Amino acid sequence: MNEFDFIRRYLLKKIKAVDTILGIGDDAAIIRPQIDYDIHISSDLLLENRHFFKNTAPEDLAHKVLAVNLSDMAAMGATPRWVLLSVALPELEEQWLKRFCDSFFALADQFNVEVIGGDTTKGALTFNVTILGQTPRGKALKRDAAEVGDDIWVTGSLGLAAAALDHIWQKVVLPDAVFQECEQARLRPNPRVDFGKKLLTVAHAAQDISDGFAQDLSHILKASNVGACVWYEKVPTHPFLTQLTDNAQWPLNGGDDYELVFTAAPEQKDMIENMAQQTGTQVSRVGQIETQLGLRIFKQNNQPFYLHSLGFDHFDSDEN
Amino acid sequence: MNEFDFIRRYLLKKIKAVDTILGIGDDAAIIRPQIDYDIHISSDLLLENRHFFKNTAPEDLAHKVLAVNLSDMAAMGATPRWVLLSVALPELEEQWLKRFCDSFFALADQFNVEVIGGDTTKGALTFNVTILGQTPRGKALKRDAAEVGDDIWVTGSLGLAAAALDHIWQKVVLPDAVFQECEQARLRPNPRVDFGKKLLTVAHAAQDISDGFAQDLSHILKASNVGACVWYEKVPTHPFLTQLTDNAQWPLNGGDDYELVFTAAPEQKDMIENMAQQTGTQVSRVGQIETQLGLRIFKQNNQPFYLHSLGFDHFDSDEN
Repeated sequence: MNEFDFIRRYLLKKIKAVDTILGIGDDAAIIRPQIDYDIHISSDLLLENRHFFKNTAPEDLAHKVLAVNLSDMAAMGATPRWVLLSVALPELEEQWLKRFCDSFFALADQFNVEVIGGDTTKGALTFNVTILGQTPRGKALKRDAAEVGDDIWVTGSLGLAAAALDHIWQKVVLPDAVFQECEQARLRPNPRVDFGKKLLTVAHAAQDISDGFAQDLSHILKASNVGACVWYEKVPTHPFLTQLTDNAQWPLNGGDDYELVFTAAPEQKDMIENMAQQTGTQVSRVGQIETQLGLRIFKQNNQPFYLHSLGFDHFDSDEN
Repeated sequence: MNEFDFIRRYLLKKIKAVDTILGIGDDAAIIRPQIDYDIHISSDLLLENRHFFKNTAPEDLAHKVLAVNLSDMAAMGATPRWVLLSVALPELEEQWLKRFCDSFFALADQFNVEVIGGDTTKGALTFNVTILGQTPRGKALKRDAAEVGDDIWVTGSLGLAAAALDHIWQKVVLPDAVFQECEQARLRPNPRVDFGKKLLTVAHAAQDISDGFAQDLSHILKASNVGACVWYEKVPTHPFLTQLTDNAQWPLNGGDDYELVFTAAPEQKDMIENMAQQTGTQVSRVGQIETQLGLRIFKQNNQPFYLHSLGFDHFDSDEN
């Protein structure tokens, strides 16, 4: 099997959407965006032994490389539409490729996303996924729109992926059932696309949590020129993690959560809880946007909670 | 300097185009495509010691990773507009980054392309560039539109990059002046964007030559369900390369040329030569599209020319 066989056999699919003019097989793909829609584009580069372990099952790998990009669309309330998959592989191993592609296309199909291009080459396992999505013109959720008085919300449970990693690195010992739950969160993040789309009409600012809640919320604060107060105990996480230590850092600076953090006016509370229910999304109100710049985290005893670090830095850390 | 300093200092630029709604700094960039335009997207993954040597000067590297993507736009007659740069770096070395970014943005500015996103991470030097461009609705040059009777044209001179590589690998010895010229072609390909845009009104099929003329022309032939006859001596190359051996393979299967191969009706000859002159582009008519499938290459003595291989396969070859 050579490069072209691989593309033909595993990546070429029949184009379905009427606004996809040309998919894989030319110098570039062609789309014809609908009038009155803005197009969102994001790109993520994922490397072996940095973003994933060498022996990750191809199904999990495929899920993750696509899910983290779907999450970027969810964070802006965008409907994901098209994806380009660039991949470097040490060899063309049919069984591995089949498992990878089956999982990748299963997730793509779930969200009606079409694979329209990319690149394949030989090398250490490397992925770059570029995703394109759309929002009604001018309606996108951005980071710079938080307003003083807004509630701060997050979806799902935070810190599980980071705790799973610390278990793997033997920095902590989790009971097997807890580890399995955390590991599942790490390997199979659940992009909040449907809920993100609903937020378009009610949220002010939003972003997804990839580098840690505190750091990602701080991006919203800086972009919006506001500050925030967050209550530590309200930040949703696995109960065992706070039981393990009353100073658990994972929920606040763990990273790899791929949940959403967003802000909305307090009067949207019922609406947000309704939308969450409709889409089967767990939501928690964890704090408030304030005039005073910076992020302040308090425990319920009113003592400040101190973060060991703000979150993941892609150059300062040598960890996975 | 951390990841965010790097992005802020070197990658964030003021957005100029009115249809660029949001650049770097959120979960995704946002563009607002003009009505009556199709959007082209292409992605290229480039790895150290596969697509470029470890010690390539950052200026040359930056030029090449963008130029090969501009070339994909040129091949479809598209106007390049936006680019996303994903990069893995072993470390954030300021001097290297400055040189890389200065060169990258110089080429981007030359073609009015805006850098709107991407990703940065730590790892072996790796680049993925995603480029977006536009053509008037339905007018793109594709591979499947070659017609029997069309002339086959190529821009520039072929085989120089491949000959430079063979010199570096000591498979051949080029005189220094010839090597310098070939090496320049390898390091600084000249994307044929202006000429490609002009071809929109006159060419039938087009594509850029990245994996070797014979292989890339064969893609057009297969997609268009036609065949071709090509005259070896008419394929433009450096004169020294044919002098070195009367059977030089470089021009036909060398790869890394980033010139255009296109087909057009014979009556467009004068128009094409005029357009070439206006844009300072060398063009050569090298063959003809025929009904009989397959690619036939003849020398001027009417003897068939035999290719050692069809061109570059990204998995079959272990070479750079």
